[in-house]
Amino acid sequence: MSGDKKEPKVTIFDIDKENNFPDWYGEICKVAELADVRYGVKGFTPFPPWSTMTMNNMFDILEEVLQRKDHLPMLFPTVIPESNLTKEAKHVEGFVPQVFWIQDIGDGEKLEERLALRPTSETAIYPMYSLWVRSWRDLPMKRYQRCSVFRSEIKSTRPFLRGREFLWIESHNVFATHDEVKAQVQEDLETTKEVVTDNFGIPVMVFRRTQWDKFPGGLNTYAADTLMPDGKVLQLPSTHDLGDNFAKAFDIKYLNENNETAYAWQTCYGPAISRIFGALISVHGDNKGLRLPFKVSPYQVVIIPIYREKDAPVVLQYCQDILKTLRKAGIRVYLDNRDDSPGWKYNFWEMKGVPIRVEVGPRDIKAKKVVLFRRDTMKRITIDLKDLKKTVLSLGKEIDGNLRMNAESKFVGLVVDADSFGSIEDALEKGKIARTPFCTTQMEGLSCAEELKDRTGGEIRGTRIDVDETPEGVCVVCGKVATEVVYIARSY
Amino acid sequence: MSGDKKEPKVTIFDIDKENNFPDWYGEICKVAELADVRYGVKGFTPFPPWSTMTMNNMFDILEEVLQRKDHLPMLFPTVIPESNLTKEAKHVEGFVPQVFWIQDIGDGEKLEERLALRPTSETAIYPMYSLWVRSWRDLPMKRYQRCSVFRSEIKSTRPFLRGREFLWIESHNVFATHDEVKAQVQEDLETTKEVVTDNFGIPVMVFRRTQWDKFPGGLNTYAADTLMPDGKVLQLPSTHDLGDNFAKAFDIKYLNENNETAYAWQTCYGPAISRIFGALISVHGDNKGLRLPFKVSPYQVVIIPIYREKDAPVVLQYCQDILKTLRKAGIRVYLDNRDDSPGWKYNFWEMKGVPIRVEVGPRDIKAKKVVLFRRDTMKRITIDLKDLKKTVLSLGKEIDGNLRMNAESKFVGLVVDADSFGSIEDALEKGKIARTPFCTTQMEGLSCAEELKDRTGGEIRGTRIDVDETPEGVCVVCGKVATEVVYIARSY
Repeated sequence: MSGDKKEPKVTIFDIDKENNFPDWYGEICKVAELADVRYGVKGFTPFPPWSTMTMNNMFDILEEVLQRKDHLPMLFPTVIPESNLTKEAKHVEGFVPQVFWIQDIGDGEKLEERLALRPTSETAIYPMYSLWVRSWRDLPMKRYQRCSVFRSEIKSTRPFLRGREFLWIESHNVFATHDEVKAQVQEDLETTKEVVTDNFGIPVMVFRRTQWDKFPGGLNTYAADTLMPDGKVLQLPSTHDLGDNFAKAFDIKYLNENNETAYAWQTCYGPAISRIFGALISVHGDNKGLRLPFKVSPYQVVIIPIYREKDAPVVLQYCQDILKTLRKAGIRVYLDNRDDSPGWKYNFWEMKGVPIRVEVGPRDIKAKKVVLFRRDTMKRITIDLKDLKKTVLSLGKEIDGNLRMNAESKFVGLVVDADSFGSIEDALEKGKIARTPFCTTQMEGLSCAEELKDRTGGEIRGTRIDVDETPEGVCVVCGKVATEVVYIARSY
Repeated sequence: MSGDKKEPKVTIFDIDKENNFPDWYGEICKVAELADVRYGVKGFTPFPPWSTMTMNNMFDILEEVLQRKDHLPMLFPTVIPESNLTKEAKHVEGFVPQVFWIQDIGDGEKLEERLALRPTSETAIYPMYSLWVRSWRDLPMKRYQRCSVFRSEIKSTRPFLRGREFLWIESHNVFATHDEVKAQVQEDLETTKEVVTDNFGIPVMVFRRTQWDKFPGGLNTYAADTLMPDGKVLQLPSTHDLGDNFAKAFDIKYLNENNETAYAWQTCYGPAISRIFGALISVHGDNKGLRLPFKVSPYQVVIIPIYREKDAPVVLQYCQDILKTLRKAGIRVYLDNRDDSPGWKYNFWEMKGVPIRVEVGPRDIKAKKVVLFRRDTMKRITIDLKDLKKTVLSLGKEIDGNLRMNAESKFVGLVVDADSFGSIEDALEKGKIARTPFCTTQMEGLSCAEELKDRTGGEIRGTRIDVDETPEGVCVVCGKVATEVVYIARSY
């Protein structure tokens, strides 16, 4: 490298993630250029290329799965007339307090009716579904949109994890029967598993939420929670059995095969990619910075040339050949020929989380070798150039499997049985999830849940749907015979 | 086909596009399910799957080109603080009258500072660029975002062509010198040509806009115009030489190689995909409906099985094989096995604009043949099954070439020389563009342009930059010696 240009300061990222998680998170968002909190509007953050490119890859994977499962994309306006938003009473209660309203235009004109920035799009979409759904022939109607949504969070905001504008996909499906709705809920939960766990390596536990914690206006909410490094759980995608509540509020009817009019049944499902990205940063990162899965990293491989001036042409040509080979194999690859030292580049791309680094020096070229460095284990291997493509692809899979295994290991022994305030609090203190007999997750249980939260700091995440659990004993709060087994955790 | 189900009414789309363009346009948007104007908020229209999928393909093509030319994606908030928006004086004048403002939150709270829904993002992005650009090492910085923008159009709105929310990509680039800015303008114009003309088949003429018609706050605007069936021109992507105006307003400085502080130079470029889609509908469509280019159609091929009940298994298996073959070749293909007659499906997919239809009946199977129907010429050919993939791919290219040629033929003889009010008006009446000597496109020429518009209904689109034109004679309005040759057209 020519030495006459001033090199940027070598910054080695090194923060103890497990013990300083909030610092670690804020710092990696800044240093890796994921989000810039200096925009000046609470909860709104610009996303520079590194996060945008990663989230675009995540969106692509999610959209591929949704389309494979017969969903078609559509796009609705960002604004919703106030009169739509207030048609479903419980939905109003749930969302209106968080709405950003538009009334003024330009230099002093006013809109006749206020417009909401969509906090979620049921009330934008369902009036049109009422026009689009006519007969059984139109059903099932499975549609989704990829967009921003807006909620004026009052809690403190954090990039990706809790913002006032976030990026998601919302799917809105219409069916002829409630049974199909239930099947769709299962499909959505499988989609969550395929996308979030199989592709992004983030393990989740799935719960049916309590009646006081469900989607406003729906019948039941099923949500996936993951575990953050600070022992709190974070809600990832949730899917909602809307019953025929919204169909009645928005008049979505169809003619069945006997020519009778019937209300339709609906689901909605809302994977927030920006939030899942927040989880991905947190779950996979280590003290050195990000560790991005091979499947979603903007660059899956970076190539670092190492040379003195006299070797430049040979080394750069070898690097170009490697670049071409990998690109041809459909691998996202970047050749870093910037005017910095190899050591600086190593630190930089380790902090950025690129899964595989190729190091190329004159000696490797003579031996027709390349050195591969994997970010997850921080280990090097030397391979024959001819095995490059094959090895990179298999290493990519291995890295993703390893990241996932690491994350899943945190789930081992995570749930502990507890049946007293003391033992619940104790479990939560240790970053565990407490499993407890409880009176009921119907609305009557709300006061018990509130007292539980006051005394232990834990929230009821709901009941399991993948295992049948028979409660034994009594509700720790009211002492009535327990009818359900609930899971309690500290949460975001 | 089983005949016991009630088939939807056969609607054959047939409107004389050339003579009833506004009707044709409104009707095809409705019947082909491109946009639903019943949403109830002026200028905001839901986009059902067919338009969304097409526009997504168009975005993909544009993003591929931008990334190949070293642009990286990023994403900024949808809202801009009022104090940012008003930092550049001319920019304020140009955009504030069209802004949607947010001030209220939830049930009666108010924001301290009003937020604008972005009408364009210079004033969101450049304050951050002022933090991101530090030294010559950071330049050039080439970034873009894909997003919605919002402008409270007062003119009457029309889906895709003029809406209050539209979909675009805006790229914002920062350079060390004005020369690089000029080179970027050229690159942007080439991108427009590659994307809009080479890929979408829409011919354009490129103009430097007049000083009163340029981007507010910039130095010069260069825009591509296409021709609509009603003889009016429509502005497609425009790119702007911002000089160092915004760098001065937003304090974007860098340290050069001599360690001196200098203001940066900037461009921005805004291809509105929703508007280009409006042009694509209009330019390529015919009396039977849409004609979508192979490159962007959601389905490039539809397969229509034709059979009596007894032949069903054989025909459907043959269709499935065709589906697999085409899908494996990366072709977007749909097997229409809905419970409708083949004739109904023919009309349906012709109206939807799918470029190639595969028709499969029992006789074709015996002969190992398939029938291909091409939408652009409405002609059928019969080919051997083994040639399917190859033929579809070459036919796809041929169709796109043919659509483009058809569109380009409308440009032949489009420009006519005119040097009097009468001859200009005459040209415009015939749907032509008038070429005229003019006093000046600097600000002093504005009053002449206004009088010209009053008397002829035509707007000055600017001067050519791809040909050197020497004016002869005098300005038709003021009679002063002409310094430029301008192009005048009726416009959207």
